[in-house]
Amino acid sequence: MKILLIVFGFFLCGAAVSQQKPNVIIILADDLGYADVGFTGCKDIPTPNIDRIANQGVVFTNGYVTYPVCGPSRAGLITGRYQNRFGFARNPIIAPNDPNMGLPLSERTLATELKTAGYTNAIIGKWHLGAHETLKPDRRGFDYFYGFLSGGHRYFPEEYIYNDLSEVTRDWDWYRTKLLRNNKPVEETEYLTDALSREAVGFIEQNQENPFFLYLSYNAPHAPLQATEKYLSRFDHIQDEKRRTYAAMVSAMDDGIGIVLESLKTNGILDNTIVAFLSDNGGPEYANGSDNGQLREGKGSMFEGGVRVPFAMMWPEMITPGQYDQPVSSMDLFAIACTYAGVIPQDTLDGVDLIPYINGQNSGTPHPSLMWVNVDKDSYGVRTGNLKLVNEESSVNALFNLQNDLSEQTPVDQPVTLQEMLQTYQDWRKSHLAPLFLGLEQRDEYHKKGQD
Amino acid sequence: MKILLIVFGFFLCGAAVSQQKPNVIIILADDLGYADVGFTGCKDIPTPNIDRIANQGVVFTNGYVTYPVCGPSRAGLITGRYQNRFGFARNPIIAPNDPNMGLPLSERTLATELKTAGYTNAIIGKWHLGAHETLKPDRRGFDYFYGFLSGGHRYFPEEYIYNDLSEVTRDWDWYRTKLLRNNKPVEETEYLTDALSREAVGFIEQNQENPFFLYLSYNAPHAPLQATEKYLSRFDHIQDEKRRTYAAMVSAMDDGIGIVLESLKTNGILDNTIVAFLSDNGGPEYANGSDNGQLREGKGSMFEGGVRVPFAMMWPEMITPGQYDQPVSSMDLFAIACTYAGVIPQDTLDGVDLIPYINGQNSGTPHPSLMWVNVDKDSYGVRTGNLKLVNEESSVNALFNLQNDLSEQTPVDQPVTLQEMLQTYQDWRKSHLAPLFLGLEQRDEYHKKGQD
Amino acid sequence: MKILLIVFGFFLCGAAVSQQKPNVIIILADDLGYADVGFTGCKDIPTPNIDRIANQGVVFTNGYVTYPVCGPSRAGLITGRYQNRFGFARNPIIAPNDPNMGLPLSERTLATELKTAGYTNAIIGKWHLGAHETLKPDRRGFDYFYGFLSGGHRYFPEEYIYNDLSEVTRDWDWYRTKLLRNNKPVEETEYLTDALSREAVGFIEQNQENPFFLYLSYNAPHAPLQATEKYLSRFDHIQDEKRRTYAAMVSAMDDGIGIVLESLKTNGILDNTIVAFLSDNGGPEYANGSDNGQLREGKGSMFEGGVRVPFAMMWPEMITPGQYDQPVSSMDLFAIACTYAGVIPQDTLDGVDLIPYINGQNSGTPHPSLMWVNVDKDSYGVRTGNLKLVNEESSVNALFNLQNDLSEQTPVDQPVTLQEMLQTYQDWRKSHLAPLFLGLEQRDEYHKKGQD
Repeated sequence: MKILLIVFGFFLCGAAVSQQKPNVIIILADDLGYADVGFTGCKDIPTPNIDRIANQGVVFTNGYVTYPVCGPSRAGLITGRYQNRFGFARNPIIAPNDPNMGLPLSERTLATELKTAGYTNAIIGKWHLGAHETLKPDRRGFDYFYGFLSGGHRYFPEEYIYNDLSEVTRDWDWYRTKLLRNNKPVEETEYLTDALSREAVGFIEQNQENPFFLYLSYNAPHAPLQATEKYLSRFDHIQDEKRRTYAAMVSAMDDGIGIVLESLKTNGILDNTIVAFLSDNGGPEYANGSDNGQLREGKGSMFEGGVRVPFAMMWPEMITPGQYDQPVSSMDLFAIACTYAGVIPQDTLDGVDLIPYINGQNSGTPHPSLMWVNVDKDSYGVRTGNLKLVNEESSVNALFNLQNDLSEQTPVDQPVTLQEMLQTYQDWRKSHLAPLFLGLEQRDEYHKKGQD
Repeated sequence: MKILLIVFGFFLCGAAVSQQKPNVIIILADDLGYADVGFTGCKDIPTPNIDRIANQGVVFTNGYVTYPVCGPSRAGLITGRYQNRFGFARNPIIAPNDPNMGLPLSERTLATELKTAGYTNAIIGKWHLGAHETLKPDRRGFDYFYGFLSGGHRYFPEEYIYNDLSEVTRDWDWYRTKLLRNNKPVEETEYLTDALSREAVGFIEQNQENPFFLYLSYNAPHAPLQATEKYLSRFDHIQDEKRRTYAAMVSAMDDGIGIVLESLKTNGILDNTIVAFLSDNGGPEYANGSDNGQLREGKGSMFEGGVRVPFAMMWPEMITPGQYDQPVSSMDLFAIACTYAGVIPQDTLDGVDLIPYINGQNSGTPHPSLMWVNVDKDSYGVRTGNLKLVNEESSVNALFNLQNDLSEQTPVDQPVTLQEMLQTYQDWRKSHLAPLFLGLEQRDEYHKKGQD
Repeated sequence: MKILLIVFGFFLCGAAVSQQKPNVIIILADDLGYADVGFTGCKDIPTPNIDRIANQGVVFTNGYVTYPVCGPSRAGLITGRYQNRFGFARNPIIAPNDPNMGLPLSERTLATELKTAGYTNAIIGKWHLGAHETLKPDRRGFDYFYGFLSGGHRYFPEEYIYNDLSEVTRDWDWYRTKLLRNNKPVEETEYLTDALSREAVGFIEQNQENPFFLYLSYNAPHAPLQATEKYLSRFDHIQDEKRRTYAAMVSAMDDGIGIVLESLKTNGILDNTIVAFLSDNGGPEYANGSDNGQLREGKGSMFEGGVRVPFAMMWPEMITPGQYDQPVSSMDLFAIACTYAGVIPQDTLDGVDLIPYINGQNSGTPHPSLMWVNVDKDSYGVRTGNLKLVNEESSVNALFNLQNDLSEQTPVDQPVTLQEMLQTYQDWRKSHLAPLFLGLEQRDEYHKKGQD
């Protein structure tokens, strides 16, 4: 009862808007480079449909994910929480018999939360949060699943030769399973990206009457580099074969996003749908031909190239087109969706409802600090304001000022303080034993006391 | 024996001074505004007697109490310790049957300590440190008590209708009890402020032969705003009725302080008496018409208006007139009194003997930091040198430089340091679980080890 | 096998050098002032032989020991570790019956380590790391010992009247024992310094065929001030008798170092011998007439005069003559010796192999911070870069910039930071009790809750 009042209260303050809870679509690209879409400055790959989200919504110029590789990044996105809170500290391996190899059951996904508000939830594409029976999408709040459980997939259906992950005996043959529709293998015939887009449109059309959450998790442009002639032919101007195939794969995804947006428009629900687009981490430039532009390094790194991603979000009823420059996180999508669905999340979120910030009601910064850690390499990053602390093998606890050094080239000089020196001393003292024996002065002192 | 030697040793170093221990008088106003006495710049209320203390003694231009409301502030003053050390973290309520509602019996008051040096101790006025039998002044080192136990009182005797707090059934009727002389209700006839001054003079005259400690704890100018025509008639030039009554109440107190000083002089003990004057917290400007001048906010606040008070101290034999600008605390009075009474306090004091600082023997700062906290609001303040950290709802962890921003208007910019970012990171890491599962690389590593 | 490969690998990279492990000679002066040798600017005492080490090797302009008095400093040197790690926190007393009064058996000396690489080890001179049977040099890795166990000694053999420390009944008569050759008292006839030099040359000549470690631990110029006419006559130009005798004692040591170097040269092993020269702490200027030059204070102090020492090291085959200006430590000698002897030390070292730093291969700083503590006085020092934090009674937590204030005269001003003030506040909060009682507002709140 209280929740309904809050929601009504909110909408009464706004302009003439529908009183329906908004639909939520999160479109996640895989291994897309920072500079590989139009709205982040890409010159050689047109992405008119992705750019439509950016132009009609808000561009997050400082948008981050929570980890520089897929699995943990997706765990952060789907829970609204730093994944290290629940030990999702590295990529899971594909282990259909291991109930601990994925998102722990202690966690609630955005689908779980939205379900309590009456949403219908679908994931279309890559899951990567657990292949065990108990960890599959249908156990994590999703009503509908079309896609695959592994961390990546091949693109041509003729290569899908296994019915089930349990049949796979060689590493990387996980990429050759048949796609699943609600846990049943299907005989797909289309190029993977086209198939996922088709399914997304199908889900929207069947569910447009009531609030839905669609997690459209493309495999593109993750390796292997595979594209159909339809898309390849658009990039004859690109000489480098790797980059040409990569461009084709991005272009296929952009086409798919185009038909998704078109479907929203046709069905009259575009204005009250939150559509977010982002990548799950920075591009692995050498591996797939992606381009992170000015940003240093890429996938796997704590430099900006690893964690800053192309990120835009539209919601015509609530968001005036523009850009927002404070650091934001993929985790924020969870908080936004819950707020406007009228759900109070059960767990402590690290994500923040960005709408008041975007609209200028709150002039503060949603995240005083954003942080990343890879416990296997002991690499980490901390962004506070424009300062970024990076610990990588090549750059031990270096501090960069992103305002004038976006490429993290020249560490900022930091004079040591009295306090830090005292701390150094106190830490050193902790390694000491108490004195083992009396000295001459202590001995005299000791004897004197004995005589009193 | 050792203590006596110390005391003698001290006085031998000074000029020709009496060898008698000094008398100690602490005059505490209640809710007096910072700018409401002559020596802090008041223009509309003459306070010639209070100013006499300032002119013949030392003015503490940076004098603080330990809390911005009455009860805890008085607990700090009377113990020489931050009252949070012993859990006196908020105003007590008036509960004559609750032995825990007041200054804990674990604590020693200044009266308890001075009694061990042969002092006769009196409190005249407001107690507010416990109404239970075991917490009353006679159990806390005071030989004489004339006044009331509650946190405030009405001023006209015809309104004193209860014999005892136990008769009170309505909130705020605590202000209507008869005054007590040594725990027995009396039939007072004078205006409250006049009555307290009269009793103070009476105590001095009866005890002037031997060292005494007088804690003259006026109710003025605390609400309710009540003054007699005698004092009101002095302020025809003040238009605002609230301010006029307030001025009259301050003026009555000043008259009283005048006869107290006169009595000391007449009895020839002025030169060897420490007389301190201060307020228990800043003025609640709207409630009683007080004025904190340039200082931000007032009673209850961690800004200067809440905790900085008019504060002066005279002791003709020891203190040359002047002013002292380093931060000092009401708690210091305890340390000063004990030092020159030759008492070594049993507990760790937070107060400091200021005399060597005032006299220039010690050029350091008596309090490297002074601090305040309200645990109910999680508001706090820290003053270190001229910097003041304030945490209030309106001002989250803001840092002000009092030297050029006495009114705490413009937070100082503080660049974040590498050390702070590392600390942020390490704090964040504490919220993490250890990795739940092996990733692909870890699995390979794990298998390899198994094969060796 | 692995170790051998490493060593070979190393030498193959260098120029034409011998493949023999280097000999190691550490020459330690006792209580020598910083400015009392030619290479640190001494004008009145020629030290041509000590200067030969400096001129043909590297001068450490910022060379430190680990403690400002003898015992702990030697414990740090001989273990390569901060002696406080194992509780060697003050000078031991001379206690032949106490197995705990000296270097704990948990520790390995440089001799213990080098023995595992086939070295022959000798200590000639002062031991001071334990007089109990189990703590003597032969139990700590030394094959040969000529010298004394106590913390100092007299210089004229006619004063050596005790066969054994166990015969000594008066303090300071420890200085009058006969010298020991492998734990047996001998009838020495030469001036102490001359005798030690003679023994050093003897050891070199007998062991020059195979790698050796010689720890030549002179008593000079420690008090008592005693010199023979041979050396005194060189300093007729010095008026002050104390300084003249001191100069003679230094000169005797320099002569001894001369015949040691000459012996190395004659035997053709100079090029592959590491020869380090340093003092065990700063000079106690008043006690022995030493001179620490510009450095503040001396022996016993955490100022530079106590811990910075004249320090030079030659190794013709590996080190090009020059100077090295980053802070280095006496502990580094342990790390250097082990590295080139092909020994991997069993314990964690605080010392660092300086050779790559000296040769410019590593441009970093070997010791981000160096630290000192005297737990008896709670004095300490921390050097980080050019900043030095000193806590002495005369200088509480003062910070000096050695770059422009080598004499540590003017503390650097350190603005307090928000973080530090928050820390001050949080530390203060730890001394508080939880609120003891409800206040008026809390009571109302409490009652309201009760009614719900």
